[in-house]
Amino acid sequence: MANAIRFLSADAVEKAKSGHPGMPMGMADVATVLFRDFLKYDPAAPHWPNRDRFILSAGHGSMLLYSLLYLTGYKDITLEELRHFRQLDAKTAGHPEYGHAAGIETTTGPLGQGISNAVGMALAEQIFHAEFPDLVDHKTYVIASDGDLMEGISQEAISLAGHWGLKNLIVLYDDNSISIDGDTNLAFTDDTQRRFEACYWEILTIDGHNFEAIANALSRAQQAQRPILIRCKTRIAEGAPTKAGTSSSHGSPLGPHEIAQMRQNLDWDAQPFDIPADILAEWREAGERHRAKRQEWEAHFNRHPDSKEISRRLNHERQPSVKDALKSVILSYIDMPVERATRQLSQEVLERIAPLMPELIGGSADLTGSNNTKAKPQRIINRDNFAGNYIHYGVREHGMAAIMNGLSLYGGFRPYGGTFLIFSDYLRPALRLSALMHQPVIYVLTHDSIGLGEDGPTHQPIEHLAALRAIPNLNVFRPADGIEVTECWDLALNTPDRPSVLALTRQNVRQIRLKDSQKNLSGLGGYVAWGDAEQRDLTLIATGSEVGLAVEVAETLAEQSIKATVISMPCTRLFDEQPKDYRKSVLGSAPRFAIEAASPYGWERYVGESDHIFGIPSFGASAPYQDLYDKFGLTVEKIVPKILKQIQKND
Amino acid sequence: MANAIRFLSADAVEKAKSGHPGMPMGMADVATVLFRDFLKYDPAAPHWPNRDRFILSAGHGSMLLYSLLYLTGYKDITLEELRHFRQLDAKTAGHPEYGHAAGIETTTGPLGQGISNAVGMALAEQIFHAEFPDLVDHKTYVIASDGDLMEGISQEAISLAGHWGLKNLIVLYDDNSISIDGDTNLAFTDDTQRRFEACYWEILTIDGHNFEAIANALSRAQQAQRPILIRCKTRIAEGAPTKAGTSSSHGSPLGPHEIAQMRQNLDWDAQPFDIPADILAEWREAGERHRAKRQEWEAHFNRHPDSKEISRRLNHERQPSVKDALKSVILSYIDMPVERATRQLSQEVLERIAPLMPELIGGSADLTGSNNTKAKPQRIINRDNFAGNYIHYGVREHGMAAIMNGLSLYGGFRPYGGTFLIFSDYLRPALRLSALMHQPVIYVLTHDSIGLGEDGPTHQPIEHLAALRAIPNLNVFRPADGIEVTECWDLALNTPDRPSVLALTRQNVRQIRLKDSQKNLSGLGGYVAWGDAEQRDLTLIATGSEVGLAVEVAETLAEQSIKATVISMPCTRLFDEQPKDYRKSVLGSAPRFAIEAASPYGWERYVGESDHIFGIPSFGASAPYQDLYDKFGLTVEKIVPKILKQIQKND
Repeated sequence: MANAIRFLSADAVEKAKSGHPGMPMGMADVATVLFRDFLKYDPAAPHWPNRDRFILSAGHGSMLLYSLLYLTGYKDITLEELRHFRQLDAKTAGHPEYGHAAGIETTTGPLGQGISNAVGMALAEQIFHAEFPDLVDHKTYVIASDGDLMEGISQEAISLAGHWGLKNLIVLYDDNSISIDGDTNLAFTDDTQRRFEACYWEILTIDGHNFEAIANALSRAQQAQRPILIRCKTRIAEGAPTKAGTSSSHGSPLGPHEIAQMRQNLDWDAQPFDIPADILAEWREAGERHRAKRQEWEAHFNRHPDSKEISRRLNHERQPSVKDALKSVILSYIDMPVERATRQLSQEVLERIAPLMPELIGGSADLTGSNNTKAKPQRIINRDNFAGNYIHYGVREHGMAAIMNGLSLYGGFRPYGGTFLIFSDYLRPALRLSALMHQPVIYVLTHDSIGLGEDGPTHQPIEHLAALRAIPNLNVFRPADGIEVTECWDLALNTPDRPSVLALTRQNVRQIRLKDSQKNLSGLGGYVAWGDAEQRDLTLIATGSEVGLAVEVAETLAEQSIKATVISMPCTRLFDEQPKDYRKSVLGSAPRFAIEAASPYGWERYVGESDHIFGIPSFGASAPYQDLYDKFGLTVEKIVPKILKQIQKND
Repeated sequence: MANAIRFLSADAVEKAKSGHPGMPMGMADVATVLFRDFLKYDPAAPHWPNRDRFILSAGHGSMLLYSLLYLTGYKDITLEELRHFRQLDAKTAGHPEYGHAAGIETTTGPLGQGISNAVGMALAEQIFHAEFPDLVDHKTYVIASDGDLMEGISQEAISLAGHWGLKNLIVLYDDNSISIDGDTNLAFTDDTQRRFEACYWEILTIDGHNFEAIANALSRAQQAQRPILIRCKTRIAEGAPTKAGTSSSHGSPLGPHEIAQMRQNLDWDAQPFDIPADILAEWREAGERHRAKRQEWEAHFNRHPDSKEISRRLNHERQPSVKDALKSVILSYIDMPVERATRQLSQEVLERIAPLMPELIGGSADLTGSNNTKAKPQRIINRDNFAGNYIHYGVREHGMAAIMNGLSLYGGFRPYGGTFLIFSDYLRPALRLSALMHQPVIYVLTHDSIGLGEDGPTHQPIEHLAALRAIPNLNVFRPADGIEVTECWDLALNTPDRPSVLALTRQNVRQIRLKDSQKNLSGLGGYVAWGDAEQRDLTLIATGSEVGLAVEVAETLAEQSIKATVISMPCTRLFDEQPKDYRKSVLGSAPRFAIEAASPYGWERYVGESDHIFGIPSFGASAPYQDLYDKFGLTVEKIVPKILKQIQKND
């Protein structure tokens, strides 16, 4: 059965003339035992909520996963798909892509991400299990490589898995001593056993080509009281006559001669993509092993008093009370305008919605008080009590983001997590995967400009808004006041297929909107927030804390009988997605200026001329924030004369 | 003496009404023993090459460093500077900023960076020591916090330090059990001893308030045969009567009442910023302890046969033969145009210059063969032989970048390191610090677009060029052919104060420039690469692999008697820095179009209209690269009709 994986993998890579045969061949034996005798799954119901999760963290070995999905009978992965490995529009992409086919639990390839997603999934299971012990009770399995363990993110995830004592997490480490540059001894000589022990994991070491040893280890893992690492000593490309155990088998086709020789050595007469009927039958039988159990579970679930609530969460349906709560927050500001930091206004929202949304799982990378991410009713999740909804991630931004991806992919959760906007750089690879996988993870990123003041340039985001806006399928929100904060939370929670960033201030901001606008104006991306939409001499576009500044500029210009209209642009992407007529009506035809305490990069899109942008082209500095706004020319006194000069020039 | 640090720190934070008093107070005793009895330094010659390096990785405790620099007599940090802690234009920024004052060896604050820089510095010392054992022989000391150790990057650096056996690296871990969210038990329960043992470090655990224990540990560390972690059990804000040991002392002023009480308890009568004369004298004496030794070293150095070569390296002076070598590479392409991948053309450059530049230290994050970063004569650095110039970093992009910062800050080295452009996200926080610290680190980022083909969207950079271009003080080069590759390397190597990214293709590109242009045209950022600069109907701007495509588009338009001029724009920042007249002459007044196989974000700056940009607004896909260029509309067949339509619209 394992050789079926070997030949499918070698032949598909050969046909594509591109790919990674070594890993699937090396781990074929381990994967066979796992999928034949242990993994709880049903290819006929790939979304069965109580299935075991299987994560191929070493995503370059995608043919291992595709082979298994085909062999066990997942409908999405046909022989035709295997033949089209790595071709345009194939479900069998170079690396496993979430959404391409059922059975692919997450997108992997960037190393360290899969194992960290898996920690999130195992945590999700424990949280669900705490609430619904008779419905949710399963394992999360991972195949990880040397590369996964070398990446720093894996340490963050491993450390948290041990901290939480995730006894349902089983990592199969493909310890083949080969990386791309050659022997792992070149750069990776950690004592892996001791490293995992330091994080309170259980560790077993086995011969990854000995079926009995594999089965024994997996049996023992079923009873583990902690996360467990099964270190599988393997030979990369096991089965290949001359290339087994060499780095040349990692990322290139084996070549026709090597494969022909392998067919001979392994007594494999079948043509490429042709699996002998008896072997395929064995595999299909393995795929049906849990069908009855799955059907039983479904019957139990359908009778279960909580089935409706669980379905609601799995389907991302919001309780109607959430909308009302958000509306009441907005109305409270209409009655009584406030001048507060948008991070605090964000906490206001959380205080109202957290009790209404059990699916909401908050957290922060050790900045809970600064990010204002914890609502009072939220309870902290720890190894002794998973019945909570707030996570202390520690100073581990990257791990936090990848774990949030895992929580979101698992289903039934709406994770959000906080850090400073500057540290979006630390979690960027995982945030990009949220966007690529269409996971509506919410990133609460506070201290969003030089407005944080004294902490200085290492803590002041400059290019980060631009760098985030450039990521496809990500909504970057920078709300201006309490009403926009509430609207943006509403949008983030209502978006099923896109992650959101909420960029929030440390410092107080002025309330801009004073009347109830009935509809969610932030959802338009940008709108006329102050002044006349029709009659205008110029247009000021601003976001977040600078909308208040733009209004002050407009007020000052009004004293000189110059009519300035202020556009608040909380989300450039949503604005770009509006109909052209709307965009034109908002932007107007008068000269336009942008004000944002950040890199000017990208603002030409809306204002045309580079010298119409009031931004910060350099790094920040350490000082009280008012001094910094002055230093960087972002005050009424410095902006008004420049605008007047530009307008005169245009006249 | 330690209390002098405590009061300076508490009083400065109090005066600034902002800052972190807890850490300087908690580590005051350890730092006192280090600076008084062990650290080899001379405030009168802060750049002495053979000084010990001291890195405050926990940069939020900046007042610890500033106090020490003032007390030991560094000229840059005066009492006046301490009084202006965290104020505009002060050298005493919120976090230590490299370049603000001698004695600040690196910019810290983003956690995990300092300890990783220190690994680079300790490695630098070992490399220099291998070449000049009688001139370079010293330690690198680090103070690190819980937060440093939680960040994944620290694992990458710790692992490499152990792998290399850096016996000159001494990390003082401030183990105070407090993080911002509260007790470290909330999220950080690793067995730190075992974790470091797993990476082959020596570990000592001491009471960080016991002077004898501190001295004993540091004595022992002098003889260590491996990197050593001294785990200092401390109380945060030690000395504060009620706030010691609490997270409230981490990041906020203690308050006047607490400080008054502390003065009483510690018998400290002196006013804020007033250090009793006898104590200051003791500190100044400590600062003079190595003066004679430093002077001896200088005398020895001046007589040394290699002093000229070492000075050349320290001053970043290139040997003239490098220029000639680069010129000869360019001329070789004039004689015989080539069609190759720019990553291969980059290796050509390395093959020529590596033997001429002993200061050049190459490496890759386990993609040596793919990044083409290793020239044949380069020798691999390992624990048994530091006399090399190529580093296998393993799959540790972030650690690589921070270690390169350390190598660069150390002096005498020009580090470059390779990974895929997509993984610039993994190393972004450290790259940003290269730019902030003006370190000319070179990032060789290959596989720079969908042109990498089958590996798919997880490996295809889309937004990365924009995200990198938005970083201040970073040159992002995307050369189009062998000549531009050579020119960009020349620029990167000749830029003393700015890091460079070289974005290079996996796939072959057509050679654009066929004549010797005498001067380095890439240094202009953008220039007319094809067609007439004066007479033109439209202008096509492209970078890297798309310059060839733009030329094909122009050739096709020429068949219809439409004159298109092609601008190659290898570096937008350098172009933006050209005089306005030059920019105008290059861009021309005809309609402009941009072609780049990447996010369109930011191109409006040069072409005005969004629909004049041929880019990729979504994620990539897995397929042979020619299929992808077609899918995303980046072919002559798809671009030409759209341009014709746009021009007709404009007419």
